[in-house]
Amino acid sequence: LSNMTYYLGGELTPRQAVHGVLIDVHGLGVLITGDAGIGKTESALELIQQGKARLVADDRVDIHQEDEQRLIGQPSEVLRNLMEVRGVGIIDVQQVYGAVSVRSHASVRLNIHLSNGKIGEENFDRLGNEDDTLEILGVKIKKMVVPVTPGRNTASVIDAAAVKFRTQSMGYDALKTLQERMDKAMAENEKEDAEGKKHD
Amino acid sequence: LSNMTYYLGGELTPRQAVHGVLIDVHGLGVLITGDAGIGKTESALELIQQGKARLVADDRVDIHQEDEQRLIGQPSEVLRNLMEVRGVGIIDVQQVYGAVSVRSHASVRLNIHLSNGKIGEENFDRLGNEDDTLEILGVKIKKMVVPVTPGRNTASVIDAAAVKFRTQSMGYDALKTLQERMDKAMAENEKEDAEGKKHD
Amino acid sequence: LSNMTYYLGGELTPRQAVHGVLIDVHGLGVLITGDAGIGKTESALELIQQGKARLVADDRVDIHQEDEQRLIGQPSEVLRNLMEVRGVGIIDVQQVYGAVSVRSHASVRLNIHLSNGKIGEENFDRLGNEDDTLEILGVKIKKMVVPVTPGRNTASVIDAAAVKFRTQSMGYDALKTLQERMDKAMAENEKEDAEGKKHD
Amino acid sequence: LSNMTYYLGGELTPRQAVHGVLIDVHGLGVLITGDAGIGKTESALELIQQGKARLVADDRVDIHQEDEQRLIGQPSEVLRNLMEVRGVGIIDVQQVYGAVSVRSHASVRLNIHLSNGKIGEENFDRLGNEDDTLEILGVKIKKMVVPVTPGRNTASVIDAAAVKFRTQSMGYDALKTLQERMDKAMAENEKEDAEGKKHD
Amino acid sequence: LSNMTYYLGGELTPRQAVHGVLIDVHGLGVLITGDAGIGKTESALELIQQGKARLVADDRVDIHQEDEQRLIGQPSEVLRNLMEVRGVGIIDVQQVYGAVSVRSHASVRLNIHLSNGKIGEENFDRLGNEDDTLEILGVKIKKMVVPVTPGRNTASVIDAAAVKFRTQSMGYDALKTLQERMDKAMAENEKEDAEGKKHD
Amino acid sequence: LSNMTYYLGGELTPRQAVHGVLIDVHGLGVLITGDAGIGKTESALELIQQGKARLVADDRVDIHQEDEQRLIGQPSEVLRNLMEVRGVGIIDVQQVYGAVSVRSHASVRLNIHLSNGKIGEENFDRLGNEDDTLEILGVKIKKMVVPVTPGRNTASVIDAAAVKFRTQSMGYDALKTLQERMDKAMAENEKEDAEGKKHD
Repeated sequence: LSNMTYYLGGELTPRQAVHGVLIDVHGLGVLITGDAGIGKTESALELIQQGKARLVADDRVDIHQEDEQRLIGQPSEVLRNLMEVRGVGIIDVQQVYGAVSVRSHASVRLNIHLSNGKIGEENFDRLGNEDDTLEILGVKIKKMVVPVTPGRNTASVIDAAAVKFRTQSMGYDALKTLQERMDKAMAENEKEDAEGKKHD
Repeated sequence: LSNMTYYLGGELTPRQAVHGVLIDVHGLGVLITGDAGIGKTESALELIQQGKARLVADDRVDIHQEDEQRLIGQPSEVLRNLMEVRGVGIIDVQQVYGAVSVRSHASVRLNIHLSNGKIGEENFDRLGNEDDTLEILGVKIKKMVVPVTPGRNTASVIDAAAVKFRTQSMGYDALKTLQERMDKAMAENEKEDAEGKKHD
Repeated sequence: LSNMTYYLGGELTPRQAVHGVLIDVHGLGVLITGDAGIGKTESALELIQQGKARLVADDRVDIHQEDEQRLIGQPSEVLRNLMEVRGVGIIDVQQVYGAVSVRSHASVRLNIHLSNGKIGEENFDRLGNEDDTLEILGVKIKKMVVPVTPGRNTASVIDAAAVKFRTQSMGYDALKTLQERMDKAMAENEKEDAEGKKHD
Repeated sequence: LSNMTYYLGGELTPRQAVHGVLIDVHGLGVLITGDAGIGKTESALELIQQGKARLVADDRVDIHQEDEQRLIGQPSEVLRNLMEVRGVGIIDVQQVYGAVSVRSHASVRLNIHLSNGKIGEENFDRLGNEDDTLEILGVKIKKMVVPVTPGRNTASVIDAAAVKFRTQSMGYDALKTLQERMDKAMAENEKEDAEGKKHD
Repeated sequence: LSNMTYYLGGELTPRQAVHGVLIDVHGLGVLITGDAGIGKTESALELIQQGKARLVADDRVDIHQEDEQRLIGQPSEVLRNLMEVRGVGIIDVQQVYGAVSVRSHASVRLNIHLSNGKIGEENFDRLGNEDDTLEILGVKIKKMVVPVTPGRNTASVIDAAAVKFRTQSMGYDALKTLQERMDKAMAENEKEDAEGKKHD
Repeated sequence: LSNMTYYLGGELTPRQAVHGVLIDVHGLGVLITGDAGIGKTESALELIQQGKARLVADDRVDIHQEDEQRLIGQPSEVLRNLMEVRGVGIIDVQQVYGAVSVRSHASVRLNIHLSNGKIGEENFDRLGNEDDTLEILGVKIKKMVVPVTPGRNTASVIDAAAVKFRTQSMGYDALKTLQERMDKAMAENEKEDAEGKKHD
């Protein structure tokens, strides 16, 4: 993540340019980061084509802080609505897919970091209980590290990550559901064991 | 495929726990198997997001036999509606994508085994005339071995496999169509050759 | 690209058989080429399933010249409507996905060549200003070389390439937009610098 | 509803021919009934085009009883896969939209009766707590009477009805949720009132 | 249908301006006609939003003859890409839904005439065997008269009409399928009757 | 529009309860109003099913003012996530279509008022240049009056209205485009006439 903090014009608000792609997925601002060539732009493109996301900024995202908890991201004026897709070239997303496909700015709420590390048991959060964060301008946002491998459609996983995050902030917690069910199942087993012993 | 046959409560019906993902694709119960990390869950997830599949069971499928030809698969109570997506964590599919996205059980009709072996001429069934099967509780179901490589969207191939299977059971057979056309073309060529000779 | 020029029946029009897949994407005839096993058929399949493309010819495309600028591609009679998907076998696209999914012929306008070369800065056209072409029967058509890697959904990139091409032929040019904005930004910076110096 | 009970061949199972359209919506067999010309076929067609439903039988549904609770519907052999759309004529749904769009039979679970009566407060079930049923061969299935008016997309309402019904049989009950919330709100108001009085 | 034949510039090709909407549905040029206010534009709009159609010309279609059988339709330069939706105003379809949603011209193959006449048995073609045509510049194209009523989604019916027409020109004929099945069923019944008599 | 201004708890911010449906369409808060039974809820439902909108509040929208220009709408706690569809009953949108389908609140930017008045030339804004507004808590928002008739899919028109509104606020104006083209065409005609006269 190549960071650069700067001040625009005479403004007092600090800004930071982040290397990544910012999209609005189902109403949530998601910042996609990862190494060059890993497919940040192409994953965003696929979600945009499916009507599930709108482009805010490709390649470079200009971020400033609106209030203590809120980061706003937008494109540089030069790159507004443009995406660079290797092999295809520059695409004007608004011209090609219409005004439904772009947004001028978004609140940056979630960071999805694409990684092509090998899938092993310890590498990636399997349950969703890790507290990884990305700090921008002093504000910490939730970070998920998503593996990029042939068998996974990255766009599809980003969609799931964004929706899970939204669902969690609405108060639902799938991990808690799982743990409650496991506790209940264990309690029932113990009860059965106890009853079994009594019958012996 | 880690198998385990067991009996539930005092029931006489044998059950088998299979490691894989069971989804209903266009009304057909498809059991996705393959090595850990190959993308079974993520492929299922993509089909669910597209509204083409509904989740029955992720990771572990409890299967019992309803009658001689029919296997029924369902989730363990603890894992019902839940999926584990690496990098994202546990997702409650019903909470996130709604009741349209889940099903309590399904008849297991087709096994799609994901394999990351290299694509060579001999490795994978190209015409669809092989008779590979998976046997569960003594019942054999059709098995297709599908390659996982960067250029292929696994979810899309699973969709095609399921629909081809359904179409075949409706009486259509694309391979037969191809063979008939080739026979006809050959016959016409021979006729032309024969006529050509006559004219000589 | 295995070429073979031949003459059909007593016709005087030369024909050429090209190894690849021809689809109609958003009304544009796109010829997908690339090494065996790279995913030409599967990428086409995914676009067909999404309702964004219709199949003209899989594996072998018979091309003839209609007029000076116009190449027409169609399937051989034997392979009409059929696709070969590794692991699944032969699929009759019309039977499985319906008549909405096939077309008898299309004008060949764009060649997308899939390549699994490594993504490096110099390998692939990043801006879309290269003039690569494919020549068939003496007619040159635009060629784009698209990388196939895990992080990219090839079908999605083909969609973008086709739409970008169509948009360009309608007179829009994203690269020109970018250059104009950069020139403008540069001019403003220079002006500011100049003014800055004046104020010093 | 023009009923006709009959016996097929030498079979002992009674059969009943019902005037209506039978589709599988999200895996649920829905029998659409209503006066001629009200749009039964066209509503089914729209859901089929959207990939949300599959056609079982148009115009006439042959129903027999599989067990005490289960009715199976299928088309007459003559009308299999065919729909009659006024102004367009006979459509072979399998030919036009593919094998993904048809099903040979389905369990009849829900009756949606289209009615063009005027929308008034008393005419239609607003909360979903009425116990209307349709009886076929002695088996009662849930019946919903859905208004057909310009401002409503009938296909969309059928989708919602089917999914609501499925969700209810999974144990969720929106009406109960509403009532609980209202009770809670009322209790809080009373508590506030009581506290208010105390403070007086 | 307000016709006006005229000559453009010094060209010798006669042109005719037709009041209606021309869209490309699944690759087929469909001219929608009907009284003012019946929903021609809105039906086209819905198909465009669904990605099933592209706009060629709204309100006024300029048609000329390319060869004996082929009519080409395009918009007037002033109205290119624009639609007029009552209550909303002028929409620039390319700006709003992108370049994927528009086409510069299309071959006019099918006329769908929207009519709000009452649905009676005799008013509309139920089987699809009528030979209604619309004549433009001396060329006759197939015409279907489609009823507009609350229970029907006009866009959905237009989609079906276009696909049925394409399927027919590919050689499939649903009406013939129906007639063959009816003949076969009748023959079997007669045979059974004859055998029944023999057994008496 | 049944208005009721009130104060919640001890808060000083005035609130107003508005009879209507509030949805987020492509990221824009749209308040749908109109007479009882005209299809407000059903139109919203259709957009939600298509993944184009998310439900904020059905039937009653609680609105307060965030700042001078900004109105925030949300559901009453009792009705959160619930919709009432006539003939179907109460639907819990989050349970049925998932967390992707709901939103806790939205900024109210556009009012679409559904009207079943007859379509006449003068009744509805055809070009989109009228300045109709709805005033809530002293803030004026843009209002469009949309006709509800059999030939129009209301959900589709609402989508177009929302996207047109967003496109306009991004600086594009289709009406201006039309007027410029007409001026240009007129100027060219005059020039031709003038030149024509000169040549006489």
